[in-house]
Amino acid sequence: MPLPKPNLYPPFNIVRLSHVEFVVTDLALSRTFYVDTLGLQVTYEDGETITLRGLEERGHHCVVLRRGGKPVANSLSFKVYDEGDLDKAHDWFKAQRLPVEWVERPWQGRTLRTRDPIGIPLEFYCHMDRLPPIHQKYKLYRGVSPLRIDHFNCFSTNVDDSVAFYNSIGFRVTEYTDDAESGKLWAAWMHRKGGVHDMAFTNGRGPRLHHTAFWVPSPLNIIELLDLMATTGYLANIERGPGRHGISNAFFLYVRDPDGHRIELYCSDYQTVDPEHEPIRWDLKDPQRQTLWGAPAPRSWFEEGTFFAGVDVRDAELKAQPIVAP
Amino acid sequence: MPLPKPNLYPPFNIVRLSHVEFVVTDLALSRTFYVDTLGLQVTYEDGETITLRGLEERGHHCVVLRRGGKPVANSLSFKVYDEGDLDKAHDWFKAQRLPVEWVERPWQGRTLRTRDPIGIPLEFYCHMDRLPPIHQKYKLYRGVSPLRIDHFNCFSTNVDDSVAFYNSIGFRVTEYTDDAESGKLWAAWMHRKGGVHDMAFTNGRGPRLHHTAFWVPSPLNIIELLDLMATTGYLANIERGPGRHGISNAFFLYVRDPDGHRIELYCSDYQTVDPEHEPIRWDLKDPQRQTLWGAPAPRSWFEEGTFFAGVDVRDAELKAQPIVAP
Amino acid sequence: MPLPKPNLYPPFNIVRLSHVEFVVTDLALSRTFYVDTLGLQVTYEDGETITLRGLEERGHHCVVLRRGGKPVANSLSFKVYDEGDLDKAHDWFKAQRLPVEWVERPWQGRTLRTRDPIGIPLEFYCHMDRLPPIHQKYKLYRGVSPLRIDHFNCFSTNVDDSVAFYNSIGFRVTEYTDDAESGKLWAAWMHRKGGVHDMAFTNGRGPRLHHTAFWVPSPLNIIELLDLMATTGYLANIERGPGRHGISNAFFLYVRDPDGHRIELYCSDYQTVDPEHEPIRWDLKDPQRQTLWGAPAPRSWFEEGTFFAGVDVRDAELKAQPIVAP
Amino acid sequence: MPLPKPNLYPPFNIVRLSHVEFVVTDLALSRTFYVDTLGLQVTYEDGETITLRGLEERGHHCVVLRRGGKPVANSLSFKVYDEGDLDKAHDWFKAQRLPVEWVERPWQGRTLRTRDPIGIPLEFYCHMDRLPPIHQKYKLYRGVSPLRIDHFNCFSTNVDDSVAFYNSIGFRVTEYTDDAESGKLWAAWMHRKGGVHDMAFTNGRGPRLHHTAFWVPSPLNIIELLDLMATTGYLANIERGPGRHGISNAFFLYVRDPDGHRIELYCSDYQTVDPEHEPIRWDLKDPQRQTLWGAPAPRSWFEEGTFFAGVDVRDAELKAQPIVAP
Repeated sequence: MPLPKPNLYPPFNIVRLSHVEFVVTDLALSRTFYVDTLGLQVTYEDGETITLRGLEERGHHCVVLRRGGKPVANSLSFKVYDEGDLDKAHDWFKAQRLPVEWVERPWQGRTLRTRDPIGIPLEFYCHMDRLPPIHQKYKLYRGVSPLRIDHFNCFSTNVDDSVAFYNSIGFRVTEYTDDAESGKLWAAWMHRKGGVHDMAFTNGRGPRLHHTAFWVPSPLNIIELLDLMATTGYLANIERGPGRHGISNAFFLYVRDPDGHRIELYCSDYQTVDPEHEPIRWDLKDPQRQTLWGAPAPRSWFEEGTFFAGVDVRDAELKAQPIVAP
Repeated sequence: MPLPKPNLYPPFNIVRLSHVEFVVTDLALSRTFYVDTLGLQVTYEDGETITLRGLEERGHHCVVLRRGGKPVANSLSFKVYDEGDLDKAHDWFKAQRLPVEWVERPWQGRTLRTRDPIGIPLEFYCHMDRLPPIHQKYKLYRGVSPLRIDHFNCFSTNVDDSVAFYNSIGFRVTEYTDDAESGKLWAAWMHRKGGVHDMAFTNGRGPRLHHTAFWVPSPLNIIELLDLMATTGYLANIERGPGRHGISNAFFLYVRDPDGHRIELYCSDYQTVDPEHEPIRWDLKDPQRQTLWGAPAPRSWFEEGTFFAGVDVRDAELKAQPIVAP
Repeated sequence: MPLPKPNLYPPFNIVRLSHVEFVVTDLALSRTFYVDTLGLQVTYEDGETITLRGLEERGHHCVVLRRGGKPVANSLSFKVYDEGDLDKAHDWFKAQRLPVEWVERPWQGRTLRTRDPIGIPLEFYCHMDRLPPIHQKYKLYRGVSPLRIDHFNCFSTNVDDSVAFYNSIGFRVTEYTDDAESGKLWAAWMHRKGGVHDMAFTNGRGPRLHHTAFWVPSPLNIIELLDLMATTGYLANIERGPGRHGISNAFFLYVRDPDGHRIELYCSDYQTVDPEHEPIRWDLKDPQRQTLWGAPAPRSWFEEGTFFAGVDVRDAELKAQPIVAP
Repeated sequence: MPLPKPNLYPPFNIVRLSHVEFVVTDLALSRTFYVDTLGLQVTYEDGETITLRGLEERGHHCVVLRRGGKPVANSLSFKVYDEGDLDKAHDWFKAQRLPVEWVERPWQGRTLRTRDPIGIPLEFYCHMDRLPPIHQKYKLYRGVSPLRIDHFNCFSTNVDDSVAFYNSIGFRVTEYTDDAESGKLWAAWMHRKGGVHDMAFTNGRGPRLHHTAFWVPSPLNIIELLDLMATTGYLANIERGPGRHGISNAFFLYVRDPDGHRIELYCSDYQTVDPEHEPIRWDLKDPQRQTLWGAPAPRSWFEEGTFFAGVDVRDAELKAQPIVAP
């Protein structure tokens, strides 16, 4: 059994994932995709930056789009419970001999920038500007009606190490895949906020961001998005789905933004707040772990991901299995 | 333009498709599939025969399952408006030098058995036993909640000929695919009852029945069926979908029964009762005609179909294009 | 049993209901309601007139809005099968000593204007301008995604007489309510196009138009419309629903336009093309005939309706029952 | 502003509401309601007791039904984070001079029984037997597909006091209604697990349990339940809905079990894990706080509730407003 024992009393209290910062090469194109097609709401925009939120979010943003030359992700951000947690996070990362730095971020209070052991750039903060609720302004709903950011999924070169690290800061595994032959973890889903995941890892060339997911009300919203994308020039941006994952039980769709950043639209998650919530094990050879039903994932889904700005990648330590998919 | 002019004053009045008779090799297995999984309602059963209806149907059956050694279709049945139409149909088919025969069918009045020019066995009748309504007995709804039979789709060795023939008996084309190179029809959808089709033809080795479709209330019912089939041992019976067809705009799923007979679950049809309803033309090379969005169809979907009992098949006159799909 | 025998061979062939012409007092306000809120598509507009169609309709319009001083309905229009049917209709109405007149209508061919015996102004035509399909332009879908006009419902001063009249021109009863005490019909639903109704009658002060209905894809679209109307200033325009009718099995919502014209949003109809389709009888005292479930209808729903231009109304011959509803 | 400052560092850590124990007068009748109609899953039953869980729950039960002479609620149960929290809870309630007692409960570890200041019997525990996951056994889904218990709602004789008390043990207010005239709270919704509420209070004769809510996947499941109840003899058990609450934005339905215990079926909640999540204020006079849209609640909904076993009730301190509803 390769899973570490859950750490129920972590060194600092992370509330949830918060936002991602993407570099995009054409802000106007990205706006058409994220705003007019997916339906995220603009909370700020100028010639360099657009910030977005979901329809039930009160924090200033869950996505920051920055104009730039190379489509990368600058960081994955997490919200901590209070200012003391920020200080404890600072000290803890420093004690792990990971780089720590206090950085300025608009709309946010004090922000700690650091990275995890495989190089994923992380930022932690406690306060972000709050905006008035819009979840009952139904006139604003469009596209897939994205309600909130749900999770990040990253390629890790060593999933056992990633799980051990995030476990030590209080992320709890809800589902995982292990490779019976090597006795190693192939993938794991870990949460802080009481759903299936805030952060997941899959074995692969990394570190890279595989996708960022948004929670939507029902499968019908996803079908409406498919109809819309298929008839407005976005057919090639539909990468995988719709389908149901065995893992997480999610009804899912994966689409690519104009720069190739991968977005998952997601519903049908379940509640995991019980501290003893038992992780569900899946065998790497069980095809239903990936796809309870639905077409197999294309090669691009297994191989492509977003690079983190300035972070080198290397091959996974566990050798990838041949992809049987088309 | 290869389409014939619609025949608005046909020689006899066909109301709609009515039912299919399948030979199945294991009645109990088939019952589990059609009744417990899809949710059709049993209206009669003995050791040799099961008859089924959809939840809004008042006619005695839309499917007849007969125990037998070889999984074939015995006939496709259509309902005509009145007894006079039956006689006119008899005379008309005879005048075309097609074989005609009055046969006995339980639960039905006089029944004319004949075939179309490529050999599809057809039966026409006017009266079938009527059953009390059950569409508001919601306790009976299960599976995909199939409401009624919607259409047949057949492989034809010459779609131009099939369209000309069915056009002459009043079927009207709603959508069609033509092959710009040969100037020939590749596929066509034809209706009597005011939806996209009662009968469709696709170029291929034939005559064979490609699929029989049932109309369901919404895409969510199809998603529920996928969840059910994927977790009750029917994963391998899911052949194609879910997806949206360009042609017909249908949200669809194709599944195979235990003998391989193909069933489509279908919703989002549109109304076509206007006599001048304009057929929509699709180019054979337009990938969205088949799949507005969704995974490409597997090879089996292009190649496999149900044989008609005692009917020889031959290759299509128009050569099949290489299948690009997986 | 008060129902007349269905007339399966009517004197002329009506295909379906086609459109309604409403006089509205403020075109801009009406546009906000029908276009921005319900989601009908504008096919023509000037300072006096707006024409609208549903998302799957190819005919030029299903609603005509005319600016005027008094909110009435000018006519209910029906499409006939061919030009010969128009002439037969002319002669038949004339033989009934009902007024007949050939009138000019833009976007239409020859149009016969007449009225039924209780005074409802009817127009019949065969040809209307056809528009390109938009049902796959999903960018246009909004509001409740109305796909097509479905039916009219009118107050009749004598439902038995109305049923007898429309029966004689080929409308077939699908469901009806009778009053066991008087032995008279209280209400009836009659169709031409193969659904539950093109035209319905309810006992009441008349003739008046009770409502015009549009067919929508699923109950979720109706829920989305409720959310939208409740948060954009249209709360008071929501009159009744959502609920499920016993009669017709429809999932329904009734709303009022800015002038009080009543619109039903409707789904879950069933197919009625069989000529022997058995009418379903409901007892006037069965509360589930109106509302299988859902709040009781308010008094306004029972009492209010749209007057026809220039047509006097009188009380129903059958005395109304006391309304138990709130 | 009558709300107390949230207590972000409570004396012990409550994870979530856990279960309710109902006394019912006829176990077989209750089983038909909760199991065959709503679709909860039986995890134990004998002649005296039935225990139930939702389809995604892993704890042994969320409802206990006990056969008895008088339909009351025995207790509301909450799960704490660890054994130490149980001890801290014991000491804290004792310090408040509230009665504390360690009781034996089957399928649970140590259980603390106490009550809140207005007399609601509460139980706290840390460990309950865990059951294998069934959320992907789709064959089990039926009725309304209840996924998990969501919240309790109680009548309180003094909502300000109830809010102050639960605030002190870490429940955070998400929405509230205040009475501008008296400057007092009329109702409040308070959570621990990151949704809109685990526990809510409404001014009224109390303490009484107003309802227990279950989370369901989508509004369509609720519509299916309405269809089922309306046609299986449960029409009179439908008390209010469907509708959308202004407060919580929930799409809701209230039904009564055979003994009158009120159950809410509920979806469309939002995430509230941010510690600074701002409560939304509603005015008592705003009709959309109760009903964003939908029929007004009947008098029974305002007045009736389940008594707690052995607990006397008294009138609310704040005088109830006249009910305008039907």
